[in-house]
Amino acid sequence: MKIGNFSRLSRRRIACVPAVLFCLWLLSLLSCVPSAPKVASRGNHQLTQVSVINALMLGRYEGLMPIGELLEHGDFGVGTLDHLDGELILLDGAAYQVRGDGEVVGVDAERSTPFAVVTRFEPDGEFPCPLVTNLTELDSRLDTHLPQKNNFLAIRIEGRFASLKLRSVHRQEPPYRPLADVARSQSVWEYRDIAGTLLAIRCPRSADHEVGGHVLDCAVSGGRLRYEVCRDWLIKLESTAAGNLVNLGEDLSREVRRVESAREDEKPK
Amino acid sequence: MKIGNFSRLSRRRIACVPAVLFCLWLLSLLSCVPSAPKVASRGNHQLTQVSVINALMLGRYEGLMPIGELLEHGDFGVGTLDHLDGELILLDGAAYQVRGDGEVVGVDAERSTPFAVVTRFEPDGEFPCPLVTNLTELDSRLDTHLPQKNNFLAIRIEGRFASLKLRSVHRQEPPYRPLADVARSQSVWEYRDIAGTLLAIRCPRSADHEVGGHVLDCAVSGGRLRYEVCRDWLIKLESTAAGNLVNLGEDLSREVRRVESAREDEKPK
Repeated sequence: MKIGNFSRLSRRRIACVPAVLFCLWLLSLLSCVPSAPKVASRGNHQLTQVSVINALMLGRYEGLMPIGELLEHGDFGVGTLDHLDGELILLDGAAYQVRGDGEVVGVDAERSTPFAVVTRFEPDGEFPCPLVTNLTELDSRLDTHLPQKNNFLAIRIEGRFASLKLRSVHRQEPPYRPLADVARSQSVWEYRDIAGTLLAIRCPRSADHEVGGHVLDCAVSGGRLRYEVCRDWLIKLESTAAGNLVNLGEDLSREVRRVESAREDEKPK
Repeated sequence: MKIGNFSRLSRRRIACVPAVLFCLWLLSLLSCVPSAPKVASRGNHQLTQVSVINALMLGRYEGLMPIGELLEHGDFGVGTLDHLDGELILLDGAAYQVRGDGEVVGVDAERSTPFAVVTRFEPDGEFPCPLVTNLTELDSRLDTHLPQKNNFLAIRIEGRFASLKLRSVHRQEPPYRPLADVARSQSVWEYRDIAGTLLAIRCPRSADHEVGGHVLDCAVSGGRLRYEVCRDWLIKLESTAAGNLVNLGEDLSREVRRVESAREDEKPK
């Protein structure tokens, strides 16, 4: 683990976006991470997903895969840690945790994830990042630029952000509450004019109920975007006795949307 | 290809269940197929799925994966062939086509599938097959015996069937009609007191919209059941330009149910 990077990141308190918030996009931001040697390709552009979004929505926060094993599946991705302990970000083969207090620290290989989406990032193309004033506009502009609606896309933006709104959550202890409950006490930060790397996973339309995305708001003032089209989608399903008691077939799309759109000022009175 | 098996199967006109009909179960039947040498294990109990059910529902019948490549992913499974050309069955490493006229023939490795679900069958357990009078009862009894609701199950029944109702469809030509339309002209056969191998894939509750199952009715008068719990789920997504024009995010669960429950006597007047 390159602890040097983490302390620098830590001081800047940049990079958040919690695992709490899910929609079509999984978005995360890390700032000033130096490039690491590229992981060898497996040539299949595979997206590997640990568990399914409904499991996380229902409070399955115990880790299912060690971070060390997750890094064998990809060098780029987002997720959360066991106990829903903040945001997990994989970038250039290193694993970062964005804690509930906004600090960014390295993640031990022995820790584990209950939910993550990762790939071995190998760009299929690139273009200048659209300059936008908010996340909705970024979604829309990228939909125009990237017509691969029925595949996962891994998107990496080295950009400058005029504004940025990020969130994370604090570590939870069992008995776990559903994610929609936990999200009500999330932490939110705002930044102005900062540079960083934004990671996004865009889900295909057929997978809306399987995975989701963190939500942050942002205005992009400049940057370069690279993307990878993922044709293979590997889902690692939980197979414990306890996991089988959970009704993952329930339609939680409304709760997912509610969590996604949750704002501090929308807390229930 | 073991043509000898096919001709014997062909004479008996057993084994059908079309790719037309989808629900929680994917069921297929083959009769009197001798055991072949076991394919070497990959040790991960992976279920590999070609495409998603909505793509097939919307008429994406062009083959996406050659049968030769499909057999590298598993020796057991069900699906359909390019042009929706009947039912595809993989058993003991051999590929069979149940044509629209009910004949069972071998499949060339060069043919391809637009939708299939296969695994390398390695049983995790076995028990005597519940004796039931219809498919609904079989579903229910197996749900009791097999609590792994959040994993795929591959199920193989060497059984005797007091009655059996099977279906298939005829090869389609472009421009392709949606599956719900094609299913209205499906072929249906009924049998009494026959022996055979029934293949089933039970989908987890979280995957209802991703894959589905063929429907046949049956009464089981005896047999042995073996099952495998699949923890890994690999989906091969189409990534063609034409494929990206299809809206796979549409909720087609109603159409899937309608196709599933379609009977000859329910044809529109």
